[in-house]
Amino acid sequence: MATSIKVHGVPFSGPTCRVLACLYEKELEYEFVKLKMHEGEHKKQPFLSINPFGQVPGFQDGDLTLFESRAITQYIVGNYANNGTQLIFQDPKKAAIVLTWIEVESHHYDPPASKLVLELCLKPLLGWGETDAAVVEQSEAELAKVLDIYEDRLAQSKYLGGESFTLADLHHLPTIDYLFGTQMKKLFESRPHVNAWAADIMARPAWAKVLALR
Amino acid sequence: MATSIKVHGVPFSGPTCRVLACLYEKELEYEFVKLKMHEGEHKKQPFLSINPFGQVPGFQDGDLTLFESRAITQYIVGNYANNGTQLIFQDPKKAAIVLTWIEVESHHYDPPASKLVLELCLKPLLGWGETDAAVVEQSEAELAKVLDIYEDRLAQSKYLGGESFTLADLHHLPTIDYLFGTQMKKLFESRPHVNAWAADIMARPAWAKVLALR
Repeated sequence: MATSIKVHGVPFSGPTCRVLACLYEKELEYEFVKLKMHEGEHKKQPFLSINPFGQVPGFQDGDLTLFESRAITQYIVGNYANNGTQLIFQDPKKAAIVLTWIEVESHHYDPPASKLVLELCLKPLLGWGETDAAVVEQSEAELAKVLDIYEDRLAQSKYLGGESFTLADLHHLPTIDYLFGTQMKKLFESRPHVNAWAADIMARPAWAKVLALR
Repeated sequence: MATSIKVHGVPFSGPTCRVLACLYEKELEYEFVKLKMHEGEHKKQPFLSINPFGQVPGFQDGDLTLFESRAITQYIVGNYANNGTQLIFQDPKKAAIVLTWIEVESHHYDPPASKLVLELCLKPLLGWGETDAAVVEQSEAELAKVLDIYEDRLAQSKYLGGESFTLADLHHLPTIDYLFGTQMKKLFESRPHVNAWAADIMARPAWAKVLALR
């Protein structure tokens, strides 16, 4: 569907890819505005008028300007409810379960996962300095505990938010994809329900379209 | 309004108070189930069946069980839309701005604010050990940068999410209230729009009802 959506970001950014995955699931067209982060474009105007915190992605839909990837995806899902994959439930109680697991991703899973992505993927890829072994060790231990709880949850429910794929799952894609390229893959593979879930969500055609941009 | 809502938590917990503030704004009755955290009740069954991460608050509304304070407040606001204060906008674009500032509170404001509350309030109050001066110094510098951005935002808009009080403001109440009892009050008072906003939201009758529980 043709839209006036613009996404400002870079293809290696997990939060940028989170928004793009949502747009492909919803079958929405968009314009990608690639920022020159190595020149600090995200820390200068005009980008700071989109996101005063100077972080990607920024998002525009006509006269609406947003930032924070998880707010952007929730806007897309609510405003384009009739397009593509639903990604949320209409029933308020089912939607609340999805919201709970969106918060779990954000507050429990993402902090250690993003630290591991930085140390094991982005630092080597972008020359951002030496990997900190102590941070890796601590984050691995934290992520393992979170994935133990995911294993229990996914033994009861095919997806984190319920019986179908929702934003609660989608939000994990960028970090899971990066971590499957590192030794942290074992944290997922050693937990059968987590492993099946990760394989399922990474196989989505919308995610393949995001990866094709890299 | 009579409900079957139960909140499991403790009155000194910021996330618990976030949920209670929302219930009072919505004029909803609830049953408070006070956990014996000093006996580790939050790390044992039956509480772990409400929140497998073992953190307060837990929430029940009939047969629905939720955790994560910001998911609970969004459920309350959506499910009891016709009660009390609105706390969100119906228009999807206005609602998306509120969602963005809910994420800002969660990812930018809360990490340093909660560290300061732990070091300066909860450790002395509950005997949880010595205040770590280095953590205080770093968190204060981080919070100051966030409040500079809030000052710009609140110069343009009476509240963070728009022209009326919403969840984006409400979510800050527990940490702001604690920090106004410490030397960190100066971070708010030295920024005129932030100071006026903080005074406005702390003066809400719903918040006074939460404080009366302590």
